[in-house]
Amino acid sequence: MAGPGRSTRKPKARSIGIDLGGTKVYGVVLQDRQVLAQAKRPTPPTGVDDVVRTIAEVVQDLGGTEGVVGIGIGAPGLVDGTAGTIHRAPNLPGFDQLVALASLVTSAVGGTPVCLDNDVRAAVRGEHSLGAAEGQADVLGIWVGTGVGGGIVLDGRLRAGSTGVAGEIGHTIVKPGGRRCGCGGRGHLEAYAGRGSMERRARKRHGNGHKTRLVQLAGDARMTSSVWAKALEDGDKVAVKLVDKAIGALGVAIASEVTLLDVPLVVIGGGLADKLGEPFVARIEDEAKKLITNAGYPLRVVASALQDRAGAMGAALLAR
Amino acid sequence: MAGPGRSTRKPKARSIGIDLGGTKVYGVVLQDRQVLAQAKRPTPPTGVDDVVRTIAEVVQDLGGTEGVVGIGIGAPGLVDGTAGTIHRAPNLPGFDQLVALASLVTSAVGGTPVCLDNDVRAAVRGEHSLGAAEGQADVLGIWVGTGVGGGIVLDGRLRAGSTGVAGEIGHTIVKPGGRRCGCGGRGHLEAYAGRGSMERRARKRHGNGHKTRLVQLAGDARMTSSVWAKALEDGDKVAVKLVDKAIGALGVAIASEVTLLDVPLVVIGGGLADKLGEPFVARIEDEAKKLITNAGYPLRVVASALQDRAGAMGAALLAR
Repeated sequence: MAGPGRSTRKPKARSIGIDLGGTKVYGVVLQDRQVLAQAKRPTPPTGVDDVVRTIAEVVQDLGGTEGVVGIGIGAPGLVDGTAGTIHRAPNLPGFDQLVALASLVTSAVGGTPVCLDNDVRAAVRGEHSLGAAEGQADVLGIWVGTGVGGGIVLDGRLRAGSTGVAGEIGHTIVKPGGRRCGCGGRGHLEAYAGRGSMERRARKRHGNGHKTRLVQLAGDARMTSSVWAKALEDGDKVAVKLVDKAIGALGVAIASEVTLLDVPLVVIGGGLADKLGEPFVARIEDEAKKLITNAGYPLRVVASALQDRAGAMGAALLAR
Repeated sequence: MAGPGRSTRKPKARSIGIDLGGTKVYGVVLQDRQVLAQAKRPTPPTGVDDVVRTIAEVVQDLGGTEGVVGIGIGAPGLVDGTAGTIHRAPNLPGFDQLVALASLVTSAVGGTPVCLDNDVRAAVRGEHSLGAAEGQADVLGIWVGTGVGGGIVLDGRLRAGSTGVAGEIGHTIVKPGGRRCGCGGRGHLEAYAGRGSMERRARKRHGNGHKTRLVQLAGDARMTSSVWAKALEDGDKVAVKLVDKAIGALGVAIASEVTLLDVPLVVIGGGLADKLGEPFVARIEDEAKKLITNAGYPLRVVASALQDRAGAMGAALLAR
């Protein structure tokens, strides 16, 4: 019992969320629904120790761990939240082996508890608690960036899965025997809608004589989401066709999952989707609706509300 | 409080389960795990009133409603369990319109409460509680008969879905733009693995000069699961090819759903699967495993343990 003169009001829990990406480490301090601070640093390409140090630096940039109940990290690859480990994260040098990231970061920041989740699941958690899917019982989140990831909320809970790897919609099959995916499989959603695969396809077409603005704009550098947006704006044929295919593949995947799971809300996020914006999302909704047998089904496909903060905010929620 | 001399032991609840199919109405009395009685009658093709009367007769055949806590009915089509209604059940004449089946049957049997669920979801409930998936947290059930239906158990609960229609795996897309489905869509799992669609395909091939045992055995009558089993046994080329395609389509659907949902157990039931047995199920598992990116994923595909009793037993469980 609280003694007289002592406030019985519980102080608001403050937590830190980190979005660990292949190009940057982005962090926020979250209290209630508010982002109190944000910070980012480039992801070092020099292995686990340097990445851990960079995360600790971002935590310092955010004001340190005083008054912080925990740190959540959204990380690419296969994440085991219970064990606090990640592995098979090909965009993070040194993370192809199993890395006990949670305990390494706890040590580096002086003891604050750290928990992990897959980066896309973290983003979907953010959208479900504070963003475009707030208060919805059932949500399918699809994050369209270099790859395609997903997260699924059913009956109000973000699904982890029997072995902790639920959500990998990028590796569901939208065309058996179709385009080769980065994972080696064929016809996966990511092979059509992931920016990495779309870039490979665009360069191949360019090499085969279909000259494209995409390569003119990107040169030898990565074909960013901005490059795709610009090429589409310019009506570049290769870009238009590849984005059409991406939308078609997303429509097939969504129609199937909505039919099986009866989930009426789909949130689309990720770098490419954020950049292409509402028209991209609206076309995905149209495509999925055309393919759903149950004609009156109340499907809505909406854009991420938290945009590039979704992952860090969701990770901070995880740490509460 | 129980008085002295009165047994405090709760009597075991007894319930009736009815599997309402296009050809027969099959019922069981279930107590604990035991089927105490079973009965069946042909489904009358003469509309709702006669179907309701037949269900009441099956209940009488089972010994009536004395001591029965409730009646569960597994029915085809779109079932609203809360409202106790079904509609769009094309194999049941008169059930294309909305039918308040639960209250009609309650009246016909003298007041016993009646609850409804989709027939395949009832079967998956049976397998999950008393059959091949007993005690498993996460299960995907696929019922392969005239059509293809499904039911999905996540974290121990059979999913109803946001609008009550979860489980329709038969209408997920395994080949965009592919074979026409009975529902009008293209490339659905049911168009490849549903016996109705397979029969249409076989008759078309026969008509085009690919003579097949399937048509020789079935004549103008329905091409039953036994006909398919016999034609396969005889090495009939059309039958072999169509069953290969069915297995391929099931493999694609399973690989995708297992990848998204992280559900390591798939139970295959339904008339055609029951008849083709273990070799059919084993081939589906092989096909799905080949297509899953996560190479070490612990997927198991198993046959229904309750076979043609699954639906009625699951419906009885619903009524407890």
